Amino acid sequence: MIQRINPNRRYADAVVHQGVVHIIEVPVSETDDIRTQVREVLGALDATLALAGSGKDGLLMANVYLTDMADYDALNEIWEAWLPPGQAPARACVQVAGLARPGWKVEIAITAAVTDGEAE
Amino acid sequence: MIQRINPNRRYADAVVHQGVVHIIEVPVSETDDIRTQVREVLGALDATLALAGSGKDGLLMANVYLTDMADYDALNEIWEAWLPPGQAPARACVQVAGLARPGWKVEIAITAAVTDGEAE
Amino acid sequence: MIQRINPNRRYADAVVHQGVVHIIEVPVSETDDIRTQVREVLGALDATLALAGSGKDGLLMANVYLTDMADYDALNEIWEAWLPPGQAPARACVQVAGLARPGWKVEIAITAAVTDGEAE
Repeated sequence: MIQRINPNRRYADAVVHQGVVHIIEVPVSETDDIRTQVREVLGALDATLALAGSGKDGLLMANVYLTDMADYDALNEIWEAWLPPGQAPARACVQVAGLARPGWKVEIAITAAVTDGEAE
Repeated sequence: MIQRINPNRRYADAVVHQGVVHIIEVPVSETDDIRTQVREVLGALDATLALAGSGKDGLLMANVYLTDMADYDALNEIWEAWLPPGQAPARACVQVAGLARPGWKVEIAITAAVTDGEAE
Repeated sequence: MIQRINPNRRYADAVVHQGVVHIIEVPVSETDDIRTQVREVLGALDATLALAGSGKDGLLMANVYLTDMADYDALNEIWEAWLPPGQAPARACVQVAGLARPGWKVEIAITAAVTDGEAE
C-alpha cells in the first residue's frame, strides 16, 4: 500500500511504501541566506518526517543539491547541528546548475525508514 | 531476488527487488523539443513500468534532471497531463550542467512500487 | 532496524535497512585522472558493499555524477570492466556543476540489495 502525503498535481510532500518514505524539501524563501535556507529545509523535513511516522533517527540516504559549492561549509554546520550523533545517513552532495526557483540555494531529497512502532 | 529488465553491459532498463522498481529514462531523440522529449521519456516510462508490474499509480520518487530550467513549465505541463490525479510521487527537479548526449534536455530517475496483484 | 556503517557527524559510509543498502562513494584523490578516480570509487564501493553484506551482483540503482561529460567514455570503460555480465543496475549519469572537492571528477550513489544469505 502506498500512502501519499499532501499530493498535488505535480508532486507529493512525501510518499510512504513498505516502511520507507521518500521526501523532497526546498527552502521557504528565495531571498534568505544559505544558513537560513538549510534551516528551512531541515525544519520542513522534521515536519514531513513526523507526518510519515519517521524522524531524524530514520534517515537512510540524502541527496543534497547546492547551487554554489561555496555554501558547503555552511550547509555542513547546520546539518551537523541538526543530526543526532550516530544517526547520519549516506549523503551525496553535488553542485547543480540551478534549482526550480532562482533564489533557492539548496534542495534535499531524503529516503528514510518509518520508525513509528519499532522497538528502540 | 532481483529481476533485471533488459540489462546490457552498462545499465538495465529497470531493476525490481522486494516490490520496488528502479528505472531511468532518457529521450528517444536528441533533436526534439522539450515537450516532445518529456513525452518520449514518459512514454518509455509507461512501457518500462508495465514490464516491471507497476504503473503510474505506483510512483514513489522521481528525480528530474533538466539541462535548462527555462524548460520547467513545459516539463510540468506534460508531467501533470500524464500523472493520474492524486498519484504524484515525491519529486526533485534540478538543472544539471549536461546529460550523456548533447541534445538531451531531460532525464528522469524513478523509484516505483510494484502494484500488480495488489488489492486496489 | 537500521545498520549504519562508519557513521560520522555528517554521513555514514553505508546505511542498511530491510535488505537494502544505500552507499555514496567519492574518489580517494583530487589529482588522479578520471580512469583512476573511477577505479578508486568502484574499489571503495566493493569494500563497502562487502561490509553491508552485498556485492556487485546486488546493485539496484546507480546515480553517477560527473563534472565533465567528456569523461563519459572513460567512465564507461572502467564501469563495464568492473560490472559482472548481466548484473547492471538502472543507472543515471549527469554532469554536475561541481563536487564537494574541486579535484573530484566523479561521485556515485548506489542503492543495492543485501545478498548475503540469499539462495543463488
